[in-house]
Amino acid sequence: MKSSVVSPFRVGLPQISIPADPRHSLVKAEEFVRQAARLGAQVICLPELFRSPYFCQQEDPEFFTWAESIPGPATEALGQVAREEQVVILASLFERRGPGVYHNTLAVIDADGTVLGLYRKMHIPDDPGYYEKYFFAPGDTGFKNFDTRFGRIGGLVCWDQWYPEAARLTALHGAVALFYPTAIGWHPEEKAQFGVEQQDAWITVQRGHAVANGIYVAVVNRIGHELPPGGGPGIEFWGNSFVAGPMGELLCRASADKEEILLAEIDPARLETVRQHWPFFRDRRIDAYAGITSRYLGD
Amino acid sequence: MKSSVVSPFRVGLPQISIPADPRHSLVKAEEFVRQAARLGAQVICLPELFRSPYFCQQEDPEFFTWAESIPGPATEALGQVAREEQVVILASLFERRGPGVYHNTLAVIDADGTVLGLYRKMHIPDDPGYYEKYFFAPGDTGFKNFDTRFGRIGGLVCWDQWYPEAARLTALHGAVALFYPTAIGWHPEEKAQFGVEQQDAWITVQRGHAVANGIYVAVVNRIGHELPPGGGPGIEFWGNSFVAGPMGELLCRASADKEEILLAEIDPARLETVRQHWPFFRDRRIDAYAGITSRYLGD
Repeated sequence: MKSSVVSPFRVGLPQISIPADPRHSLVKAEEFVRQAARLGAQVICLPELFRSPYFCQQEDPEFFTWAESIPGPATEALGQVAREEQVVILASLFERRGPGVYHNTLAVIDADGTVLGLYRKMHIPDDPGYYEKYFFAPGDTGFKNFDTRFGRIGGLVCWDQWYPEAARLTALHGAVALFYPTAIGWHPEEKAQFGVEQQDAWITVQRGHAVANGIYVAVVNRIGHELPPGGGPGIEFWGNSFVAGPMGELLCRASADKEEILLAEIDPARLETVRQHWPFFRDRRIDAYAGITSRYLGD
Repeated sequence: MKSSVVSPFRVGLPQISIPADPRHSLVKAEEFVRQAARLGAQVICLPELFRSPYFCQQEDPEFFTWAESIPGPATEALGQVAREEQVVILASLFERRGPGVYHNTLAVIDADGTVLGLYRKMHIPDDPGYYEKYFFAPGDTGFKNFDTRFGRIGGLVCWDQWYPEAARLTALHGAVALFYPTAIGWHPEEKAQFGVEQQDAWITVQRGHAVANGIYVAVVNRIGHELPPGGGPGIEFWGNSFVAGPMGELLCRASADKEEILLAEIDPARLETVRQHWPFFRDRRIDAYAGITSRYLGD
């Protein structure tokens, strides 16, 4: 399918805190989507796993009850909002795909309310407080684009944001913007010493994807200090949602601790201009990249 | 070959202006290398094509007379300096490999003065003022590491710095640092409008490589406004040589217009710690990256 230069569209990123009771989170998300739509947003991306507290802080099988099928309650409710508001919605969900098969899944809902497709998170983290390998099978969708009503976009999820391969492969499909719903924060005991450096690395690597691919990058994180039921210091989600332009320039950036809706314009014509002036795609040495599929080359 | 954690070593980056007369440039480079060595540098990287003005500003076959064989005059002279000072030298040269076969080549000279190996620039740019496709055949070395006396390092050149694939493949070989000799600057007529954004993109994408690979990145650029003999506004080389640590943090950064020698410590133990805490290499989806060898996936 050819992707020709299309019209600009407006992105909305609701940076929100997540209610402790999962019964309230969908209603809250719907309200923020409608508010973003009223502000002119056309493609709205919610934070990662917005339907519940970040349960991956501990390995407890109880949390599997929070998974849902897709299509399911969330995509039905949000599909109706999408149709009513005529907006595209990117919804990051805890998917029960089949018996014992769970994924961290991004559902892309088009502006007519239909589920356009799914991206199942390919890179699954596992480190203290982020025990995602326990809950989620690695995605098998590969890196995808979605032809929404407003333009061709790429959807990725959180840990993917550290992987240049994920950004490149998604960009090579012709997307004009990469979306990253995210749940990242500080370990409270590390924040003072490493907090600034960690957050700067997170922003930098993603701005780097924007530069290397001449593409818009839209990142939406949650806020709030969430304590796991089993005890422990919890995670202080660091907000700082942002949108970068195709030269890596920050178009907007949210606070660390406030609920807000970021808005930014995605202009496919600007992307084309940037790529004409910095023609990185032209000079890729595709004859020499096969080693990328190796785990390590230094043995 | 196994790369185990080795001792820290000190990098030196002489950011210099290049004499208009190529007969003087080698002597100047030698002086700066010796000065860096006296300051404690052990691995010293000179800017891209330091032996002459940046001749790629125009397509003139006269400049092919500036090419040299490797080993040749430059590697012999610098080999002697390396041996005397007991330092590793990375020398970016205009190589005449054979009749009509020219490359933009990085020669890595070990601390005993021998040429340890060559990296021939894989990504060749071509845009107004940087007509490198006219002068240089694309490298056929692939992405390489060099086991120097002080540690395993990766060598890349300028335009490579925009390519995450180049950084990744070089890092996967086990290097603790990526070196990028560079010749990049502003078109004087663009500087006011785009200068800040361009330079920021250049720094950001390379800091991004440091983050994504948990690796040190050392970049050395030239300074000075060079006018092409055929006339025209020339290029204002923007300096800003820098070294980033394995979380992308800037360890040092030079001015835009002054000659100086940047010094930084490369600590393989820190690199290992960073990679243990942010284990990006562990989770790479090598089963899903084959598309990286495609030119485009959006048709």
